[in-house]
This record gives sequence, C-alpha cells and structure tokens, in this order.
Amino acid sequence: MDIDKIRTDTLHCQDIIHFNNAGASLPTKFVNEAIIHYLTQEETIGGYELEAAKQTEIAEIYDEIAKLIHCDSNEIALTDNATTAFNRAIFSIDFKAGDTIITSELEYGNNFLNYLRLKKEKGINIKTIPGNNDSPFDLEEFEKAIDDSTKLVAVTHMPTNSGAVVPIEAIGQITKAHDILYLVDTCQSIGHYPTFVDKIGCDFLTATGRKYLRGPRGVGFLYVNKNILNKLEPFSIEMTGAEWKSIDHYQKLGTIKMFEGWEKPYSLVMGLSAAVKYANNLGIENIWKRVSFVANDLRTKLQNVNGVTIYDGKGELSGIVSITKNGVDTTKLQNHLRKHKINTSISPQFTSLTDMQKKNLMTSNRLSLHYYNTTEEIDKVVETIDRI
Amino acid sequence: MDIDKIRTDTLHCQDIIHFNNAGASLPTKFVNEAIIHYLTQEETIGGYELEAAKQTEIAEIYDEIAKLIHCDSNEIALTDNATTAFNRAIFSIDFKAGDTIITSELEYGNNFLNYLRLKKEKGINIKTIPGNNDSPFDLEEFEKAIDDSTKLVAVTHMPTNSGAVVPIEAIGQITKAHDILYLVDTCQSIGHYPTFVDKIGCDFLTATGRKYLRGPRGVGFLYVNKNILNKLEPFSIEMTGAEWKSIDHYQKLGTIKMFEGWEKPYSLVMGLSAAVKYANNLGIENIWKRVSFVANDLRTKLQNVNGVTIYDGKGELSGIVSITKNGVDTTKLQNHLRKHKINTSISPQFTSLTDMQKKNLMTSNRLSLHYYNTTEEIDKVVETIDRI
Repeated sequence: MDIDKIRTDTLHCQDIIHFNNAGASLPTKFVNEAIIHYLTQEETIGGYELEAAKQTEIAEIYDEIAKLIHCDSNEIALTDNATTAFNRAIFSIDFKAGDTIITSELEYGNNFLNYLRLKKEKGINIKTIPGNNDSPFDLEEFEKAIDDSTKLVAVTHMPTNSGAVVPIEAIGQITKAHDILYLVDTCQSIGHYPTFVDKIGCDFLTATGRKYLRGPRGVGFLYVNKNILNKLEPFSIEMTGAEWKSIDHYQKLGTIKMFEGWEKPYSLVMGLSAAVKYANNLGIENIWKRVSFVANDLRTKLQNVNGVTIYDGKGELSGIVSITKNGVDTTKLQNHLRKHKINTSISPQFTSLTDMQKKNLMTSNRLSLHYYNTTEEIDKVVETIDRI
Repeated sequence: MDIDKIRTDTLHCQDIIHFNNAGASLPTKFVNEAIIHYLTQEETIGGYELEAAKQTEIAEIYDEIAKLIHCDSNEIALTDNATTAFNRAIFSIDFKAGDTIITSELEYGNNFLNYLRLKKEKGINIKTIPGNNDSPFDLEEFEKAIDDSTKLVAVTHMPTNSGAVVPIEAIGQITKAHDILYLVDTCQSIGHYPTFVDKIGCDFLTATGRKYLRGPRGVGFLYVNKNILNKLEPFSIEMTGAEWKSIDHYQKLGTIKMFEGWEKPYSLVMGLSAAVKYANNLGIENIWKRVSFVANDLRTKLQNVNGVTIYDGKGELSGIVSITKNGVDTTKLQNHLRKHKINTSISPQFTSLTDMQKKNLMTSNRLSLHYYNTTEEIDKVVETIDRI
C-alpha cells in the first residue's frame, strides 16, 4: 500500500492528525471533486436534465457497492445514512406480537431504539446476547437463545464505542441453520474490514458513506437478499416501490427499489461512488491489514502510558481504540488533543448503553484510525496523551 | 424585482431556457458556493469537527425557514426531501381502524401511496374531495365529508402536474372548527407562493429544497405545530428524539427533533440555507407576483397557439403550466423543445393518478416558470411550440 500516494490524495492530512475516522473520515480529493463536478453541471443544465444524462454513472455506484460486498447490483438501495437503511429494513418485516429479535450487547443507540419502537408498536421481545472471555458475542449463548419465536437476528458488526468485532460469519452459519432473518449493521466496518454478504449469509446489511468508506455525509446504503424481497413490505412506500392502481389499491413492485426514495441527493451519490471505487481499487483486504496494523500499534503503545485503560477487549479488534486516562476527564483529554491538532471523539454512554453500563463508563475517548494514518502520527498522539 | 441582477446570480440562465422549476430549479450561485465552501472545510478539518464549529450557522437555517413560513424555529425538522417529511408526519399519528383521511383529487403519487399503506396496515379509510367549476377542491363537499371518523385532512397545495391551487387557508378554517389534524404538502408551492402556517392553521407542512426554493437536491423540511408534539410518536425514532433508558424502555423526548435524523447532509443544509435566505431577501410576496405574471403571460400566449390545450383550470393558478399539443406526442414535444435549449418535463399519469384519469390524460407537458424567467424566453418557447 502506497501510503505516500494515499496521503497525497488526502488533501489536508499533513495539517492535522485525524483519529476520528469512525465519526467521519477525511475523504480523498476525488470525493469532493466528484460532488463539485456534479453540482456544477446541475447548475449548468438543470438537476433533472443532468440526472437523465447521467444514468450510466448513476448505475455504476450500485455495481461498485456490489463489488465491495459481493452481491448483485439489484440488491442495493441507496439511502441517506445507515440508520435510515436500518429502519427501512426492520420495519419491512411482518413482525407479530411475541416474535423475538436477538441482538448483541454492543448495539448502537439508534438501532436499539427501533427494536424498542417495534416492541411498543407490535409487542415483540428483545433478547441480548452477552460476550465471554474470548468474544463480544457468545455463540453458545446465542444458539441456546434461539427458539420458535426468533424472527430476526440483528447485530452491529463493530460497535461505535470500542474495537470489538462481532463474529458475523459464525452467527450467519447459525441463523442459516435455523432459517432466521439476519441483519448486519456495518456502519463502522464498511470500507475497513472485508465484509462479504456471500460469506456472512445475511439478509440485510446496512452501511454509511462518511465513515471508513471515506465518502460524504448524507448518503449510505442497504443490501437486501433478493430471495426474500417478496416477503417484505417497507413501512412507507414510494413510486419507486409500488404502482398506484386506484384510490383503493397499490401494487407492490417487489424489487430492491422499494427501499429507495424517489428523490436522491445525486451529487453526494457521486461522491460515494468515488469513495467506493477508491476502496475497491486499494482492495479491502489490503485496507484491513493496514488498519489492523496501525490500530494495534496504537494499542500496544498506549498500554505503556501511565493511567491509560483500553476498553477494546480481546481477539480480533477493529480500527477503533477506546480509552480513558486516569484522573483526566474525557472532554479535557479530547480538548488537549485538539490543541495539538489531533482529532478524536468521545463515546457517550447513551450511544451504546448496554455495553457502556457493563463497563461502568459514562464516557470514553475514541481514537479511530484509518489506513492513511502513520506510525509517526501514532507516536505523536501517544506522547501527547502521556504528557497531559 | 431586479431581474437582471437575479439572472446574474443564476450562472447559466443565459445559455438555456429553464421551464422545469417544478422539477428542480436552477439554483443561484450562492447555493453551490455554500455547499462547496462547506465540503472544502470538511476536507480540511474533518466532518464532525466542522459540524461542532458551525453550530451557529446550522441553527440559522431553522430561523430562516421559520421566517419564510411564519412559525417558531423549534417547529422545523430537516429531512432529505418532502416525501420523507410527509411520511414522518403521517406515520407519527395514532391512527386506529376506521379513522378517515380526507384528501384532494390532486394528490402526488408518493403521498397517496402512503395513505394506501396506512389503509393496509391500520385499516383507515380514504375520502377524496372533487373540484368544482371554480376550485380544484370543493369546500362544501369537504365540509359534508367530515364526520366523527375524520382524523386527518391532508392536501397537496399545488399538484405536480398542473397550475391548480388548493384553497389551503379556507380548508384550514374548517379543520380548525372541527378540531381535525391538518397536513399541507407544499412541495411545489414553497418558495413560490406566500405560505404561512399562522394563516393556514395547519399542524404539519412538508417541503423540499430543490424546486421553487432553488436549493440543492437531497434536502427538505417538515413543520410540526409545537402544540401537538406530545400527541405524536414517529414510527422510527433516533437518539435525536428519544432517550434510551434500558433494554426495555425509551423515553420519547417530545420535541421537533423526534422528526429529524441524527445524521444530516450538512453541506446540502448549507445550500438550502443560502436558498431560503435568498427567497426571504427577495420577499415571498414579490416572488409570487412575478411568478404569477410570467406563468399567466405564458398561458395567455399559448391560448393563441393552434392545437394547444391547457389543463390548469380556472381561478388562481401557480407557476406550473400543463399542456398538450394536438397531434404531437408529449415526448416528441419535450425533445423538440430540448433541441432548442428549452428544459421542460412530462407529467406521467401515475404521479397524479386521480387527476390525470379525470382529465383522461396518460401524459402531459409541464412548463414550470420561476421569477427569473423572462418575457423574451416565453415568446421563444411559444414560438417553438407553435412551429412543431
């Protein structure tokens, strides 16, 4: 991986140390170039006129995403972010009272809120699977938890607040054996970890553009297994997904377009397209090797810093490094780093309630690395944390 | 209104005649400047870091919209488009089986599909109110249709496919007298017609940015009357609208933020902000006078063209002019105009089924004018239509 070239493509990474890639990554220059080019053309010939002229380029984004996650292009719907994708997916399932959703203890707030929304609206049950010493998701406990009421297994691949990696492929083997619907939220893993629906065996995969894919804010996507489309009906439906037949009746189209809005932010879609192409060109396995290397380098070095606790657990870990420093308030540490031109973020308890309560944390500092981050940056960050 | 100055602000309006403002208008140069400035800053310091630094500018968009439609800033939620706003609104109402939605015959496809979705999911009834010789919405028929089952009156202010204007203020007086929830879809009227929630008396107003507001694609908004927020619960909920208390329970926050996603396309929001400011600076009454003048000028001149039929009805008419030309297929006419650098669009039946069926039209040609269009452009378009 040619890190110098990659850093040249990332216009301002020399000026700041960006360890907030799990918030929103720094894009490559090609992302904004694509967006700005599209906006400028819209201004020149008109928004609808440009859309009509750009049908080939618009189709390409579906192909690029399909290449990234190993599915068909007609299994991808563009959405405005991962939460929208997630909600469109779960509210399209015909839950009945007494049905159960099985999930992890590492769920993102927006996801869990919508399990609870379904509980309130439809009377479903929610079961969370704890971790064990080796894994954030205990597969034996999971298999024991499955019963006839289990309608959906929905897990966050990598949580927002730590380096944990949920074993989505092993879970997929079990859901397949039990013929249960399976949703994987890859909001934090997409563009970072080799995440292939053919290996996972999931029915839904939700993703965003702005994080490890290095795309723009305001666009994400949803994968839906084409073999289950006929069983699903999105809670709200548009002309992309149904034909309005009369004042009494519509005809559901039964294609992936049921999950996509009629109107789309095409300029941002072009930015996402550039981002996915860049990831595909680098190769997701190469990206993962590099992210894993830099994140583990940071963890190893932080272990030697006095007062630092790391909350990522054991086993395979992501590009997200979660810490506190003894006696240093998380906001104080974040501001201290910012003064040294180091971007990081804070994970508040409410975004990952079940996990943070188990860890007895109200907040933690999150340092999220990407392949363009360097050993020199890591050394500077470690030194800056050490000195406060 | 200084049309020369306005046309200077609209970079390419000299090169094309854009009569597709009801599709997506040509933006002023300030819109793309605002978006590009924001994207460039995101690239420089990071997306989350910029969002934190721009809280004042982000708050301003709510104030600008509140100024435009005469409401409080904390009654506005940003959405990705008008349909999203519409769906968030109607699916937050606690419909029971047997409740009735009263609507018009001029509804937009996406809206009507979601009335039908509610019918299927919850067993509600739908009543459509016909027009009469003077109006596209008969107020006497409307008042007769109201009964104890009437839960919501939902109307499109200006349809996508004709110049008709639904009397939303008169409807509002009746809904208020009967204490019925009232939703107005201003997708085609916002930025074009003085549309003030204090005069309409509506509980919900839905809008998009890309049409008569001249903003970017991919952003819109929803107004919700703050006095009814405690009665509503959005179908899907995010951390903006609820507090995740435990694995069994969330606490709805009861603010307008329930209707807004946690993640937003901030660059496009900045573009929308520039667009709304521009409209507010021109003054919406001035805009309406000018749009009304140019659209009526076009209608008057088209009446003298052999073979042209106009489908806008009588009374007050919008900037949308809907026609067919005898013996000329709508696609042929659109392509002919495009060859002369004139942008127009086609209204297919399925986008306005009830209205188009009554008119016995499968398609019609739509010419939608804005204040920056000129008499010279109108004359050229009329001549070009005459000559085919």
